[in-house]
Amino acid sequence: MVSGPSGSGKGTVCQGLFKELANLQLSISATTRKPRGQEQDGVDYYFLNREQFEAMIAGNQLLEWADVYGNYYGTPQKPVLEALSRGVDVVLEIDVQGALHVKSRYPDSVLVFLLPPSRAELARRLKNRGTDSSVDIEQRMQWAEKEIKEIPRYDYLLINDDLAETVQRLCAIVIAERCRPRLFDIDLLLHNY
Amino acid sequence: MVSGPSGSGKGTVCQGLFKELANLQLSISATTRKPRGQEQDGVDYYFLNREQFEAMIAGNQLLEWADVYGNYYGTPQKPVLEALSRGVDVVLEIDVQGALHVKSRYPDSVLVFLLPPSRAELARRLKNRGTDSSVDIEQRMQWAEKEIKEIPRYDYLLINDDLAETVQRLCAIVIAERCRPRLFDIDLLLHNY
Repeated sequence: MVSGPSGSGKGTVCQGLFKELANLQLSISATTRKPRGQEQDGVDYYFLNREQFEAMIAGNQLLEWADVYGNYYGTPQKPVLEALSRGVDVVLEIDVQGALHVKSRYPDSVLVFLLPPSRAELARRLKNRGTDSSVDIEQRMQWAEKEIKEIPRYDYLLINDDLAETVQRLCAIVIAERCRPRLFDIDLLLHNY
Repeated sequence: MVSGPSGSGKGTVCQGLFKELANLQLSISATTRKPRGQEQDGVDYYFLNREQFEAMIAGNQLLEWADVYGNYYGTPQKPVLEALSRGVDVVLEIDVQGALHVKSRYPDSVLVFLLPPSRAELARRLKNRGTDSSVDIEQRMQWAEKEIKEIPRYDYLLINDDLAETVQRLCAIVIAERCRPRLFDIDLLLHNY
């Protein structure tokens, strides 16, 4: 799971990760908000209506979900578990609350926090995107402060001051986490010795 | 700390690591056994007599030590702590018992187990070294079996079937471990936001 304030560069860093490493896929979130611009159903999000989303909540089909300013967002469970069963690791771009919820249910999952190098840089990036009003930006900055307080609960912290280096570090985290002893059949290893 | 049976390739893999990454140094062990071949004092080992070694034990100057077949081996504490205080990470090539002892004293230290791909391959490597008698080899194989049982207590497991890939994975572990939130001043990060 990769978390970080809007403007931290989650999307770009994860794209870099997928270019570098195999056996990885991005989790596609479900949402009830309307598609924007070029967004495609099943690619950027699964676009659902409220009844569909609430049926998924009722059926325990979401790893986590939240109501953000009146729109539902959530992570469908089935594609994640199916990928894992095929030996494919799944990356979730996810807010701090959702990430900590998934971690509590799946303690072996891995939390990475992505942080822009400074508050000034974060504000600059949000302004440069040009998609947010100044009220939105102020709201996002306050949200960032709240999320940053949770960094000590994360497994890893990446300070995104150099994109290429941040991608390399994220790749290193994935490679390292694939070397955890619990992912190996220790009985089989012992049997071989 | 890197552990693994004799013949697992610890030395070669660590050499690869030092070529790839900066701010790393190898811990030099102290021992009372006699130098062999080209071994140099202060490079391969600190060669001490028994009185010197026992004075270090008595003075709590060793991170860990053991008596192996009548010779003392141990890790002098001072160079390790000095390197860490300069921001240099220290690699210990160390047996399982010593590694678990250091981990119990320094829970933030990181344990990596290096394993040849099979028992047959381990036996082949020990024979090819030509430095051990067949009795020694049998003894080392039995020692390997005992050490492998401790793999679940390790943080990472590297199966050394391809040297270049094993080095890359060990580099990834070091890079990833340098991204732990506890290594950052979170209060300072929060202050910046």
